[in-house]
Amino acid sequence: MNAPADIQHLLPQVDQRPIPEAFLAALQQRFGAQCSTALAVREQHGRDESVFSVPPPAAVVFAGSTQDVADAVALCAQHRVPVIPFGVGSSLEGHLLAVQGGISIDLGRMNRVLSINAEDLTVTVQPGVTRKAVNEAVKGEGLFFPIDPGADASIGGMTATRASGTNAVRYGTMRENVLALEVVTARGEVIRTGTRAKKSSAGYDLTRLMVGSEGTLGVITEISLKLYPLPEAISAAVCSFPSIAAAVHTVIQVIQLGVPIARCELIDAGTVRMVNAHSKLGLREEHMLLMEFHGSPASVKEQAETVQEIAADHGGNAFEWATTPEERTRLWTARHNAYFAAIQSKPGCRAVSTDTCVPISRLADCLLDSVAEADASGLPYFLVGHVGDGNFHFGYLIDPDNAEERRVAEDLNVKLVTRALALEGTCTGEHGVGLHKMGFLLDEAGAGAVDMMRTLKRALDPDNILNPGKIFS
Amino acid sequence: MNAPADIQHLLPQVDQRPIPEAFLAALQQRFGAQCSTALAVREQHGRDESVFSVPPPAAVVFAGSTQDVADAVALCAQHRVPVIPFGVGSSLEGHLLAVQGGISIDLGRMNRVLSINAEDLTVTVQPGVTRKAVNEAVKGEGLFFPIDPGADASIGGMTATRASGTNAVRYGTMRENVLALEVVTARGEVIRTGTRAKKSSAGYDLTRLMVGSEGTLGVITEISLKLYPLPEAISAAVCSFPSIAAAVHTVIQVIQLGVPIARCELIDAGTVRMVNAHSKLGLREEHMLLMEFHGSPASVKEQAETVQEIAADHGGNAFEWATTPEERTRLWTARHNAYFAAIQSKPGCRAVSTDTCVPISRLADCLLDSVAEADASGLPYFLVGHVGDGNFHFGYLIDPDNAEERRVAEDLNVKLVTRALALEGTCTGEHGVGLHKMGFLLDEAGAGAVDMMRTLKRALDPDNILNPGKIFS
Repeated sequence: MNAPADIQHLLPQVDQRPIPEAFLAALQQRFGAQCSTALAVREQHGRDESVFSVPPPAAVVFAGSTQDVADAVALCAQHRVPVIPFGVGSSLEGHLLAVQGGISIDLGRMNRVLSINAEDLTVTVQPGVTRKAVNEAVKGEGLFFPIDPGADASIGGMTATRASGTNAVRYGTMRENVLALEVVTARGEVIRTGTRAKKSSAGYDLTRLMVGSEGTLGVITEISLKLYPLPEAISAAVCSFPSIAAAVHTVIQVIQLGVPIARCELIDAGTVRMVNAHSKLGLREEHMLLMEFHGSPASVKEQAETVQEIAADHGGNAFEWATTPEERTRLWTARHNAYFAAIQSKPGCRAVSTDTCVPISRLADCLLDSVAEADASGLPYFLVGHVGDGNFHFGYLIDPDNAEERRVAEDLNVKLVTRALALEGTCTGEHGVGLHKMGFLLDEAGAGAVDMMRTLKRALDPDNILNPGKIFS
Repeated sequence: MNAPADIQHLLPQVDQRPIPEAFLAALQQRFGAQCSTALAVREQHGRDESVFSVPPPAAVVFAGSTQDVADAVALCAQHRVPVIPFGVGSSLEGHLLAVQGGISIDLGRMNRVLSINAEDLTVTVQPGVTRKAVNEAVKGEGLFFPIDPGADASIGGMTATRASGTNAVRYGTMRENVLALEVVTARGEVIRTGTRAKKSSAGYDLTRLMVGSEGTLGVITEISLKLYPLPEAISAAVCSFPSIAAAVHTVIQVIQLGVPIARCELIDAGTVRMVNAHSKLGLREEHMLLMEFHGSPASVKEQAETVQEIAADHGGNAFEWATTPEERTRLWTARHNAYFAAIQSKPGCRAVSTDTCVPISRLADCLLDSVAEADASGLPYFLVGHVGDGNFHFGYLIDPDNAEERRVAEDLNVKLVTRALALEGTCTGEHGVGLHKMGFLLDEAGAGAVDMMRTLKRALDPDNILNPGKIFS
């Protein structure tokens, strides 16, 4: 990679360990056709949606069962070979990159919904099941799983990155919605981290320790999730605003009033233009909030009226309603396609995605200054946000071979994160640390807390084989 | 203690380490009048609401600041002396007992509300602030903190035991409502575990690791909590049922329908009698649900109507409403006093409290068989439950000097926990493991998971000075 010196520190530190021949032989003996060393397969498993590229893993194991995972990890432990869990490859921070070499375990074939407990509002799935597949499986019971990061990510991957997305403002994140896990430890042993009870004080919260650990503390092989009754009524609306500030102040007031809004997304005018071009939507090309309300018909009406009043106070206009499932799907598909719409607006580009999250009272301060900086930079960008949670994403669109664009994008991100941390926020609301935010994590959490994380990692994975080189150096 | 052999294994393993003279001298030099070795003070800090008694700690330090805590822990670390954090002493599982000797750190003087961020619905407090004091401090802002374990516990203690209580069915437990912590580590260093952002994927979830760690991984010195807008309308109701089964099946259906009920408590007829005698309430002496609804006036009305219909289908009758704050306070005070009402019903008794929690569909199976066993035993008991969460408590009333009663109570608890675990539940929904449930934790979590907990403990507290002898042996 050719990058100027001043962003060198932002690039992955690559130090791939040698793979013992005996290990590869043992792996192939155990897994046969479930193990591939074909370059195309390895390359597909050695990248994600981040801008980084490093040489791929030495092999890919397609696990079909917890026993497969346990055996693969045990072999890796025996030979001290790194192992990187792979879901669908939609992570954004370099989580899947084999910076220290090793193998990838593809969990895509572990895609069974193991049990639906409709009466308890829980479902237990294998890690390769995607969020859409969960919803397909449970909708017949009148239930749904709300966590929606946009991509049709695997539940294993969403658990590992503590994902959230559009519905988190009402339903919480993977942190709140994972009940219990089955995990393969660094020694290849299988443990369970909890029961299906809704709450428990039984010892350390191993579930929450694993949620968001990015594959560095164990490989997740089974997940029990909370479900919710499909709302009796759902209504979505778009509302245009004369300025980003007007939209943001509307959101702040809605949240502070405790309106149980289910989704509350900001899309800036430039991104609306990209979405229109990509999805042929004909939305008004102004800054907008895209909202959704869940509840009884009366409660949805009440929520919507409250929000309309607040929006009107801030100059919001052109409330447009989408009450049929088809209309709603069209709107949310457009929102989810914002990333791809943006990428296609500049052929050959990649997006450097930001992920700051701040307390809601600081949202305007954080967002508006960062918009001004992005505008001044001259880089094209998209801006979308789960603003009800104080979380938003810029995607700076860069030519990956243009070192100057990259530098400008990274510089904007540094300024944004610095601002968010000063406002008592976090460098990552939902994407995780991966390779890209290690420095920011240190700034945010402090050396003592990162040292505690490192101590935990060393204790649970003394040979550093589980997705090494991620979260902290 | 004189106990027959067959409950010997349930008694605390006491092995108090010798306290170096140099340590006590250093402690007194640093803390002066903030340090007491008076027997009465030590005894007050060496017990809780459990049935156990062991010799008290060697000294009590009254910490006034994080620096005090850090210095005390650093001295303990230097001399390898155990240190047990103390809030108000309302824990139930022997958490505060100095089974391995050492000192108590009383955090009661750290009782300042540090900042109220009304716009963000957060508050940051010192650990000695009680839940009632939090609510007193924030009500002027139109906000409240919902977690309510009954006792006016300290926020530090509630965090350390992952407490919950009556409002958890709607608002979650301490797990969901702690945003971030300041913690003094086993080396006496101060770290922060998070920011005030509502969500974050920034590395391992140290906050959740500390929540529920019962003082064994760090001493909590500052807590940021989520707050909620005071509901526009609140309505409480009691409803009588012809049987416990009828009440429980009502609850199951309410939860499965997704009614956002704020509180949903079961009190059995016998306990209602005790409460009437204690609080002069004149409640109908039948099995009852005590419920509360929060929301807009329209939403509260809608919820209440739905629940009334379901209750009627199960033979529930005599819905009585309490809409004024005074009436509600009277009802909830009665509920919270159930424990004391029961204790007073048998002079000199102590309660052996159970704390199982099961998936809601298993609630009837778990509860009804256990009621039958308790009735057959001849021991008096109280029965109350946060049944909306599948969590309930028997309190078997025993003469602490009567070994046979103790054996019977422990035997009932063993049967109950065994049943709850078979039904995919937990041995402790909200009280914690402490001394009393170590064996149950092993049954519930399995040796592999408990071994992982022990590995974490060893990593963060290699000299085993932080509340040693709790959670696991």
